[in-house]
Amino acid sequence: MKKQNNSKLRIIPLGGLEQIGMNITAFEYEDSMIVVDCGLSFPEDDMLGIDLVIPDITYLKDNIDKLKGFVITHGHEDHIGALPYVLKEVNAPIYATKLTVGLIDNKLKEHNLLKGTKRKVIKHGQSINLGAFRIEFIKTNHSIADASALAIYSPAGTIVHTGDFKVDYTPVFGDAIDLQRFGEIGKKGVLALMCDSTNAERPGFTMSERTVGKTFDNIFAEHKNSRIIVATFASNVDRVQQIINSAYKFGRKVVVEGRSMVNVIGTAAELGYINIPDKTLIEIEQMKNYADEQTVLITTGSQGESMAALSRMAASIHKKVSIKPGDTVIFSSNPIPGNEKAVSKVINELSMKGADVIFQDAHVSGHACQEEIKLIYSLVRPKYSIPVHGEYRHLKAQAGIAYNLGIPKENIKILSSGDVLELDQDDAKVVDHVQTGAILVDGLGVGDVGNIVLRDRQHLAEDGIMIVVLALEKYNNQVVSGPDIVSRGFVYVRESEDLMEEARHVVNDALDACMEKRITDWSKMKTMIRDSLSDYLWKKTKRSPMILPIIMEV
Amino acid sequence: MKKQNNSKLRIIPLGGLEQIGMNITAFEYEDSMIVVDCGLSFPEDDMLGIDLVIPDITYLKDNIDKLKGFVITHGHEDHIGALPYVLKEVNAPIYATKLTVGLIDNKLKEHNLLKGTKRKVIKHGQSINLGAFRIEFIKTNHSIADASALAIYSPAGTIVHTGDFKVDYTPVFGDAIDLQRFGEIGKKGVLALMCDSTNAERPGFTMSERTVGKTFDNIFAEHKNSRIIVATFASNVDRVQQIINSAYKFGRKVVVEGRSMVNVIGTAAELGYINIPDKTLIEIEQMKNYADEQTVLITTGSQGESMAALSRMAASIHKKVSIKPGDTVIFSSNPIPGNEKAVSKVINELSMKGADVIFQDAHVSGHACQEEIKLIYSLVRPKYSIPVHGEYRHLKAQAGIAYNLGIPKENIKILSSGDVLELDQDDAKVVDHVQTGAILVDGLGVGDVGNIVLRDRQHLAEDGIMIVVLALEKYNNQVVSGPDIVSRGFVYVRESEDLMEEARHVVNDALDACMEKRITDWSKMKTMIRDSLSDYLWKKTKRSPMILPIIMEV
Repeated sequence: MKKQNNSKLRIIPLGGLEQIGMNITAFEYEDSMIVVDCGLSFPEDDMLGIDLVIPDITYLKDNIDKLKGFVITHGHEDHIGALPYVLKEVNAPIYATKLTVGLIDNKLKEHNLLKGTKRKVIKHGQSINLGAFRIEFIKTNHSIADASALAIYSPAGTIVHTGDFKVDYTPVFGDAIDLQRFGEIGKKGVLALMCDSTNAERPGFTMSERTVGKTFDNIFAEHKNSRIIVATFASNVDRVQQIINSAYKFGRKVVVEGRSMVNVIGTAAELGYINIPDKTLIEIEQMKNYADEQTVLITTGSQGESMAALSRMAASIHKKVSIKPGDTVIFSSNPIPGNEKAVSKVINELSMKGADVIFQDAHVSGHACQEEIKLIYSLVRPKYSIPVHGEYRHLKAQAGIAYNLGIPKENIKILSSGDVLELDQDDAKVVDHVQTGAILVDGLGVGDVGNIVLRDRQHLAEDGIMIVVLALEKYNNQVVSGPDIVSRGFVYVRESEDLMEEARHVVNDALDACMEKRITDWSKMKTMIRDSLSDYLWKKTKRSPMILPIIMEV
Repeated sequence: MKKQNNSKLRIIPLGGLEQIGMNITAFEYEDSMIVVDCGLSFPEDDMLGIDLVIPDITYLKDNIDKLKGFVITHGHEDHIGALPYVLKEVNAPIYATKLTVGLIDNKLKEHNLLKGTKRKVIKHGQSINLGAFRIEFIKTNHSIADASALAIYSPAGTIVHTGDFKVDYTPVFGDAIDLQRFGEIGKKGVLALMCDSTNAERPGFTMSERTVGKTFDNIFAEHKNSRIIVATFASNVDRVQQIINSAYKFGRKVVVEGRSMVNVIGTAAELGYINIPDKTLIEIEQMKNYADEQTVLITTGSQGESMAALSRMAASIHKKVSIKPGDTVIFSSNPIPGNEKAVSKVINELSMKGADVIFQDAHVSGHACQEEIKLIYSLVRPKYSIPVHGEYRHLKAQAGIAYNLGIPKENIKILSSGDVLELDQDDAKVVDHVQTGAILVDGLGVGDVGNIVLRDRQHLAEDGIMIVVLALEKYNNQVVSGPDIVSRGFVYVRESEDLMEEARHVVNDALDACMEKRITDWSKMKTMIRDSLSDYLWKKTKRSPMILPIIMEV
């Protein structure tokens, strides 16, 4: 470590605060910068037509000379998903554990970025030096294997960043969280703790992943005569391992279905993160060679995603598997907020087809509840608390925990994305605010859909559009053709011919009024058409379709 | 009762099965028909722009000669909300308890239907004769006062319909559910039980409404120094009563805010269903004359509805109340499935403004859990079980309960809307299926938005629209003006001028191709324009806006 000097550490979250997802945080010390995580988020309900959302990284582009690399805590989309987009703008080496790098590589391959990007696999306990920083990877537990906390050593002090984590004393794969190391680092003095807030509102302890295995065993024992289908998160390798364990124990073959599930399990198997007994895995085409009670199908779709394998099976549009009476379907998942209705729809469809649907006790969270958060604070004993990962309500809940554990209110920093927190042993304060934001990805377009387009989509979605076309003679503004009125998404025209006919009269009256008032400016004419038609339609229907007058010059 | 003869009873649900809401069921015996409940449902996520959904009552119109009246179990929207629309098509007398009639009257007033509609207030324990039927109103408990179960006596046997209910031994207002009467009727022999399935997946007993009052007292005691704001369902009069009780106990004045809240409390107070101590209620304008710790504000918006009072306060767009640090906001509600994210958004906004948000233990359900359902089955001991009120998964859960209580599988009838169940002491089977469906209400339009319009709205919402206008000479199809291209909701044009320019070339090429192939039919020309532009845009953007070619004749 360099000798302590007078510079301060700067922590700049570029996303991930006051929201779930899009985690990305810059750490700066003098002319060194590292970035922890680079995730995407999924579109909000009002982001119509948007596929995914990535962070605005203007700040990284402006400081690319300082950037030493991306340090990634684990392989979930909200921590790695923006990498392919961000790397196209600011290329820097990536440091992560083996499975995390494996999952990142899959993404880079898809975007043709594998060749141009340096990736380095780091083991738990190992450190890397990046400019003024040393970063140590610490073993944690989470709903994906190979998750890490980070100890970020800088001349201004040490930051512990938990990443997403839980405390699992009996994990399915590998070791329990390295609580000793948290204690050891804490004993030496930690400037700030950045701790996962996702479950900070929930009292108690999150159950061990292993408890789900027992539930599977019980369900398999109770449903010996039926085909079993289990839906879970593609990235939860330990969960899939436990399903395979139960299948093996009960003499069943396993089929893996759903593109992302096949990908992740493939990568995990290749890298040794999952242990599949010989001749246990079969192809989906082979299922027909086995009796129902000899098979287990592990599938995507636990969130009711309409295009996922389970939803297609439930709707009878899956090419290879149909749900039939007697099937047992297990949801090994909880609905993520916002997905409740979609999940319920799939449960209903499965039930109607005669399946026995089980959606209780077959899931545990991957995030620490209140008692685990208290444990980490007690081991690390930071000077400052910086709650991360979560909506404002979650950050505030963690702030409450930190306060109850004795951290003074002024040392608890709830940041917003873009805040520049400068800190050292003497002080921590927000000194600046940099540009951040959400870049919307729609098809191939990155950032070409903004607020105006979204507002138009919302308007079109609500009430549709009415287009008024007319052709005017160049010199005297005489109507040569039209007005023609076309509508879409407004009202089914055959049922409303009178309304359309009257609308045409309204437009003609507006045109007459323009003539009388000698209005010849086309934009004024369009406004008059729009206003009078809008008034008429609102009076008649209490609806406000988008009205789009188009004048052609002939 | 008439002497038993050979006719059968017909039960025809016209809505409310396999869905939450839109409860309406016809009961027919020979030439007598009654309808139990007449509710609306709220639009699904894919019903863009739709305000509410009402049942298709073609069957009632076709059998209007038989219709003796509407019998309403309680005053929730999913049981009374379609009445104004349905009465315009099939007018018949309405029978319900006092508060229920009061709430129906409010609706009829709004729709100018009060004068033309006969309403009759029925007391619990009282019966009415409607053609071949006698209907007895039985006291139950629910999240709205004056809820009733119905005993429907017909020559073919007795049906017990619980309506929405819970068992509350210590209700806030009035009596507990009349379990004795359920037992007495059961003892005499019940043909079928139609029982609320909403909570049939939940084990145990629903807590008494009174327990929420204790929670309020505790919260009021703990937050003596802050203004208290409570959000709850407008129709839960007993909940409001308990908030008023706590306010009075702690010497606070009460303000009621939100249109539906003011309406329901007004009606309830007028009819004696709520007891407000003198000088407790103040107008919202008077709040400024009292210290924060002297006031309680009861408001709508517990479901995160963007236009409700609480959401407007949270977003600082409420005209009279702003959230400030130190406020205590209680959500006395659970999010209805689908509203989780909206509720969370409001909680985040309130927290950011410094409010202390409480959303635990301040609510109980209004629906019976498994043990209560078992209790009703054990009192009524019906021959047939017909689970009602709920999605398929809930109906199936109740079917499981009925089966476990000894009702044979073949006597448990999970119906779909439109099924005609014919039953008597010997048999119960679905013999027919009548027309049912969802009629969409959008503004003043009832049923003028169908699948085509919804599909267009979905398409417009996803990718927007691109309009191609050209003016052609009548005789030789020569392009006189255009092609002009206008887009909305597709891409922000200033950022994509090249794309629009290229699109114009693509259209011109398509027109040239038409010329070459001597295609003069306008619909063919439009198809060629649409196809080539669609291909081009997909290749360039991986998006599929709606493409609308308009040709003007000049």
